[in-house]
This record gives sequence, C-alpha cells and structure tokens, in this order.
Amino acid sequence: MIGKMSGQEVYVLRLGHRRERDKRVTMHVFLTARALSASGVIYSGDKDDDLEKRVQAVVGNWGGPFEVTYEENWKKVVDDWKKKGVVCHLTMYGVNIDDCLHMVSRNKDLLVIVGSQKVPREIFQQADFNIAIGNQPHSEVAALALFLDRLFQGKAIKEGFKDAKIKIAPQERGKKVIFQNNEGNL
Amino acid sequence: MIGKMSGQEVYVLRLGHRRERDKRVTMHVFLTARALSASGVIYSGDKDDDLEKRVQAVVGNWGGPFEVTYEENWKKVVDDWKKKGVVCHLTMYGVNIDDCLHMVSRNKDLLVIVGSQKVPREIFQQADFNIAIGNQPHSEVAALALFLDRLFQGKAIKEGFKDAKIKIAPQERGKKVIFQNNEGNL
Repeated sequence: MIGKMSGQEVYVLRLGHRRERDKRVTMHVFLTARALSASGVIYSGDKDDDLEKRVQAVVGNWGGPFEVTYEENWKKVVDDWKKKGVVCHLTMYGVNIDDCLHMVSRNKDLLVIVGSQKVPREIFQQADFNIAIGNQPHSEVAALALFLDRLFQGKAIKEGFKDAKIKIAPQERGKKVIFQNNEGNL
Repeated sequence: MIGKMSGQEVYVLRLGHRRERDKRVTMHVFLTARALSASGVIYSGDKDDDLEKRVQAVVGNWGGPFEVTYEENWKKVVDDWKKKGVVCHLTMYGVNIDDCLHMVSRNKDLLVIVGSQKVPREIFQQADFNIAIGNQPHSEVAALALFLDRLFQGKAIKEGFKDAKIKIAPQERGKKVIFQNNEGNL
C-alpha cells in the first residue's frame, strides 16, 4: 500500500475516445480507475457529454472524490505532467510490469496512459515507462486494473468513498443495497 | 501459482451477450480470459459468429490453446459444471475476494461467471461463491482480470502460447513484432 500511504495520486489518461465505438469500453476504463483508487480520469478524442454525465452520476450516487476532464490536446497533458510527475504508458509492446514496476517512483504523482485506437508514436517516446501487462492482445481495462492493483500492492480496491448515497452490504447470496437516510447517514 | 501448477483449469462463462451492445466488451472479456491463463470461454445470450471469428483469429495468430463455445442454455452449463467443479460468480453484491478466495478449492476445475445485462437470480443461488472485486460499480473485464490474477497468485499473465505466428519482443520504446519464419519458428 506504499502508493496510497505515501499520498501518491494517480490519474488515468484515456487517449482517442470515439463517441460511438468506445462508449462502453471507455466507461469501463473510468469505472475501473475509480474502483481501484485512481483520483480521476482525463480523456482525449471525441468530447462526450453523455459519458461525462454517466461518470458524474456514479460519483453522485456512490461517492467520490473522482474527477473526469476532457482535454483535446493530449500532448499538452503529457508535457505538463512530465514537469511534476511520472508518465506510464500501458502497451502490449512494452516491458513486462514485473520487470519495471520497481523503477516507477512512489514519491511523484502518476499519469497512466491507456489507448483506444492506434496510439501515436510520440506517446512511446514521451512516456517515462512503456509497460506491458503481458505481451499478448489484451484489454486496456484489464491492463489498467492489474497495473493499479500491482502499483497499490494488492490494496487498490477502494471501499471508502465520501458522500455516497448508495452502498452495498456484501452478501453470500442475493443483493443488499443501503440507501442514505434523511440524516445523510448510510 | 498453486492454481496453474495443480493443473486446475478455469473457464469463463459470459452471460447474456448482446450482439450489438456488447460486441466490444465481450471481446475484452475473452481477451482477458486468454491473456490471464483461462483455458476457454463459454457465452450465452445472442449467438455471435463474428465475435467467435475474432477470437479464433487471435488464437490463430497469437497461439493457444483457447476455446470459445456458445451455449444457449446457461442453466445446463452451470448444472453440468457443478457435478465436477466449482462455480464462482463475480458480482459487486458478493463477498469481497480477499475474504473468500481462500475457501475456493484449488483441486477442482473452476467456472467463473461474469454477467452483462441483469444477472438472473438463480445465478446467485446456484454459484458456490458470489465474489465481489470491491462492492463498487465496476467493469466485469477488470473484475475478471483481478480475480484470475489473485487466483493464480500474481502469475496469471501467460506468455507461453503454442503455435503462435506472431510474438512481441518487449521494448522500452517502440514496437518489435516477430513473425513466424518458413520453418515455423518464431
């Protein structure tokens, strides 16, 4: 839990979102980022108001904080980030996570880049680390999940969200959902 | 690596596939299953020949073995499996993985169920374990990835596929792909 304990913040940059084609998978990327302790997501490609609303609805019901931001110019996002933090690009062409994660600083904030359509070559050059979660055809959702879980040393799964209106009580069978009462308590 | 070393085989049952709506996310589920050492996938819902062809193309190029099977009757799949193995259903309503994975047998083959649309109540009853990868809105792709990685004790990422025509040589920057030569070697 070094990452979380040291106060290291992680943001996810989703490249090249395509409104129609990627609407579900990008949402999966965002839900994964939130559930696994990232502080927020930035996306480029098509601006997608519906996607943003869906993320904000999740945060409104299930708690936060968790930011979603659109940036048309991903180069600027990466350049700005490099001035203050570390940039990790998840790609099947990179170095296996188990061979390089120990080199990633735990003291600086982290930008994790996941692509959708073909990733521009500059990303491979600009990233501090090109990291493979296995060198096989993969899902960026799965890659992000494993990256965050390894980064946070098996403690990425986040349970404590602020201002949640809905919460689940774990059950061996069936579903139990707890709704906020009038006093604002769960 | 107990799971893999003991010869335990894992199959993934994807419930309720909808041809148009789920075509990308179901493919992500299947790629994740393959990349993380599952032996194959079974899916119910809409029969989807294009999806099956895409999986078979991945296996043809990148190696196997990895099976994809359609079953209209998911109840029969689950019933048959329970006669010989263990059934784990991944759901945000379940018991957190860290509180129950130790109870899952390592000596029997495993069926991991992931839903898409609303999961029928019988699944919660029929499954031996209803397992939550966190009790937050999540992605079934990410949940499957973390489940397999925990099951295989951090060794789920599979590199050794048979009969691969394409392979990646990990690089710090850029892409290096190795194609099979005429002798069939990579």
